[in-house]
Amino acid sequence: MLETAELGHAITKAEFELAEPKLREALVNTQYDLLAGRRKAVVVLLSGVAAGGRGETAKQLAEWMDPRHLRVQAFGPRTPEQLAHPLPWRYWQALPPRGHVAVFMNAWYAEALQARVAGRIDDRGLDAWLHHIREYERMLAHENVLLLKFWIHLSKQAQRKRLAELDGNKDTRWRVTDGDWNRARRYAKSHPLWEHTLRETSTGEAPWYVVEGSDWRYRDLTVGSILLESLKHANQPPRGRKVAAAQPGPATAPAVIDNVKLIRDLDLGQTLDEATYERELERQQGRLARLTWHKRFAKRSLVLVFEGIDAAGKGGAIRRVTGALDPRQYEVVPVAAPTDEERAHPYLWRFWRQVPRLGGITIFDRSWYGRVLVERVEGFCSDSDWLRAYGEINAFETDLVEAGVVVCKFWLQISKAEQLARFRAREKVAFKRFKITEDDWRNRKRWPQYERAVADMVERTSTELAPWTLVEAEDKRFARVKVLRTIADRLESALES
Amino acid sequence: MLETAELGHAITKAEFELAEPKLREALVNTQYDLLAGRRKAVVVLLSGVAAGGRGETAKQLAEWMDPRHLRVQAFGPRTPEQLAHPLPWRYWQALPPRGHVAVFMNAWYAEALQARVAGRIDDRGLDAWLHHIREYERMLAHENVLLLKFWIHLSKQAQRKRLAELDGNKDTRWRVTDGDWNRARRYAKSHPLWEHTLRETSTGEAPWYVVEGSDWRYRDLTVGSILLESLKHANQPPRGRKVAAAQPGPATAPAVIDNVKLIRDLDLGQTLDEATYERELERQQGRLARLTWHKRFAKRSLVLVFEGIDAAGKGGAIRRVTGALDPRQYEVVPVAAPTDEERAHPYLWRFWRQVPRLGGITIFDRSWYGRVLVERVEGFCSDSDWLRAYGEINAFETDLVEAGVVVCKFWLQISKAEQLARFRAREKVAFKRFKITEDDWRNRKRWPQYERAVADMVERTSTELAPWTLVEAEDKRFARVKVLRTIADRLESALES
Repeated sequence: MLETAELGHAITKAEFELAEPKLREALVNTQYDLLAGRRKAVVVLLSGVAAGGRGETAKQLAEWMDPRHLRVQAFGPRTPEQLAHPLPWRYWQALPPRGHVAVFMNAWYAEALQARVAGRIDDRGLDAWLHHIREYERMLAHENVLLLKFWIHLSKQAQRKRLAELDGNKDTRWRVTDGDWNRARRYAKSHPLWEHTLRETSTGEAPWYVVEGSDWRYRDLTVGSILLESLKHANQPPRGRKVAAAQPGPATAPAVIDNVKLIRDLDLGQTLDEATYERELERQQGRLARLTWHKRFAKRSLVLVFEGIDAAGKGGAIRRVTGALDPRQYEVVPVAAPTDEERAHPYLWRFWRQVPRLGGITIFDRSWYGRVLVERVEGFCSDSDWLRAYGEINAFETDLVEAGVVVCKFWLQISKAEQLARFRAREKVAFKRFKITEDDWRNRKRWPQYERAVADMVERTSTELAPWTLVEAEDKRFARVKVLRTIADRLESALES
Repeated sequence: MLETAELGHAITKAEFELAEPKLREALVNTQYDLLAGRRKAVVVLLSGVAAGGRGETAKQLAEWMDPRHLRVQAFGPRTPEQLAHPLPWRYWQALPPRGHVAVFMNAWYAEALQARVAGRIDDRGLDAWLHHIREYERMLAHENVLLLKFWIHLSKQAQRKRLAELDGNKDTRWRVTDGDWNRARRYAKSHPLWEHTLRETSTGEAPWYVVEGSDWRYRDLTVGSILLESLKHANQPPRGRKVAAAQPGPATAPAVIDNVKLIRDLDLGQTLDEATYERELERQQGRLARLTWHKRFAKRSLVLVFEGIDAAGKGGAIRRVTGALDPRQYEVVPVAAPTDEERAHPYLWRFWRQVPRLGGITIFDRSWYGRVLVERVEGFCSDSDWLRAYGEINAFETDLVEAGVVVCKFWLQISKAEQLARFRAREKVAFKRFKITEDDWRNRKRWPQYERAVADMVERTSTELAPWTLVEAEDKRFARVKVLRTIADRLESALES
């Protein structure tokens, strides 16, 4: 892929001066269409060899376009805040909303390549990373993020010449670091690594554009033209059904037949008497409290996910958990309808924002699993949207676990009869947090659909790293103690390892 | 104020057990009313003497209320990210939206008192700080934030007893730090300081509640009851006009007669010929570029505010500024209608979020001055809202300047005839960023009202720390060079000092 970008592409000053004003006007106009239509968020990723001119290209784009709706973000060494969060966290934070353009300098590719060159990961580690990147970029593409990846390239000779030029001029000398020269010395060794990385990550959703950097007019005009064409395409209305049906991905639900057995076979008859409950509650709360004050917990964090049939007792279970915790440590996130800012981002974005830093605890009352539960059952998203969500969610949770987060997921189940009894009881109570809404009755009518969605969810997202715990919640005492004990067990084994 | 909280207030177990269930139910119900009505954001500030039990009270509140809509935040030593921002930044970030409750542990009072006790500020410094706090709290009160301030107090004897108890128990020993014992030793010396601070900051909008902490039942029940009454009050619909009129603050615009002269007397005939413009533009852009790469700029930052009559050329001026900058350094913030998240916070909140960290540059294309311009003229806020905004804005900008931010504010003025010519020209152009809207024509009709609002704004917010620069923008070249030169001059003198 790289050889064609080592030939010395160049265009003349006259050609540039002819093309540039048109490109500039078209770019700004298309940017305004993007802002008005808000169909896509656009990320221009600039990566490549040292001294290729990524910074200059970023500056050129910012000059050609309206800087009020374009943001350039460089990803350097990680700050302490970034180090206390999962690896992709800083990219999550930087993702622009629909209608906006962001230029990312280096970002995840530079990070992966540097890790490999420095020997922090081996070839297999790099491939695992690239695989992860591919999946992540595919998700972005599906979630209305247009990702344009440019590799600004130079031949070995051109790079040396360019570095020497910059280093020789007192106005530009500060831009050349020892790291640049070191990287240049490793050019021959790095070359196959670049080839490999580009080949492995050039996908239909996010292909690489390799642009030779030695002639700045050629470089900037090429990047600008590709950006323009892509923006125009992004501003088109979505393609009709006929075309959409031809897209990859299974079009119907997976043909699993009786996985609802998993839910139906739960032994909802399990109970705890009051005395046992009081004793066990105190014991498990004590364990949990001690574990969260453990020295090693400062290097870990905890994410709890509560999902369950309406009236299954999520709120009560959460309160027994928070009762064991220092309120400065945790945050409870109730998940309701998304805000307009959240709607302008991928569906996981609102949860990315809430991931705890090391030493912290986030408790989700409903979660990203809404995608494969309510959104699936109510038809709020397309089949292909919720079908791809399983893999996306597993990847997200893997990111969490790899950053030291202990992820516990609870599904609270009650019988249909018990739900009815609780609805009736709530209707009689003045206590406002227990008001029954029409939604609750409507969901109840869709019991079989939800049962099926839950079974698929558990089957496809109960991973070794982030397993589901099914909680028999017919007896509240039993459920609460099971939840607390599970968290304490998981945390204990994580802190011991 | 403190003596009454050194008497050993206590209530019996029986009294507590009678009152607690009722309080708990009422608190949760009122919290749900708050969430449904979204009239106010509620901040419960817990400050006080060491070992008074602030942490326990926070935990009790989190247990009594629904933890999903309540957040407890402790403010400890500042993180590097917080140190790179203005002093109040971390409090701005933590402010809950309307409908929600936040418990702030210590916060700004602990910070001010610690600075005084450690000798980092003298009595005058403390008073300046307290004055600033008072103004800030008043603004919050006007902006629908209910602030409840509790000082949890102990007599000297009670504090020593409590510390010894905690220190003697292996389960609680970790909660007692050397700092706590040091603070206890300074009890007598600190007492008048506490008295002074509480007296100076107990205002009508945000009075202090001093609660004795030696008996936990008394302490928590007292805090809970005050919180309940305040929440009930916060859930009431706003009071009628008759009552509102009796509130403090000037009810009508200030009686300044001919301050519009300031605007009308601008010499709009000033021009630059093309050759001079090209030379000066390059020169001033070069100065600005060098200044932003200056070593000392890493400890400063830059906030640029662009306001002006429609079609005065804000966008063009901004592009000449960004043309001189590295795009990784700056962010341009176009100010449009607020999002729902922004509407749920004080009007300054959306700007607080955009304050640059040290070494950064934020360019506001329209700004917080919308409050005293468009919101005033169009009647989007009440007279008392925009009248108090002048002082709030000055306080905000003072925070910025004290944190090392250089604040440059530009008002771009053109004549009414020139505006008409530019509107007409734009109507003929295909370039989409120059579309004329009905708003533009409507604003034009309100020219005298805007003229008056601008004159008041400049008069009341052109401070020594953050002065306005009026820019004669009839000639675009003249305006752009004046803007660039002003920024470079201001930055130069800031970096020299």
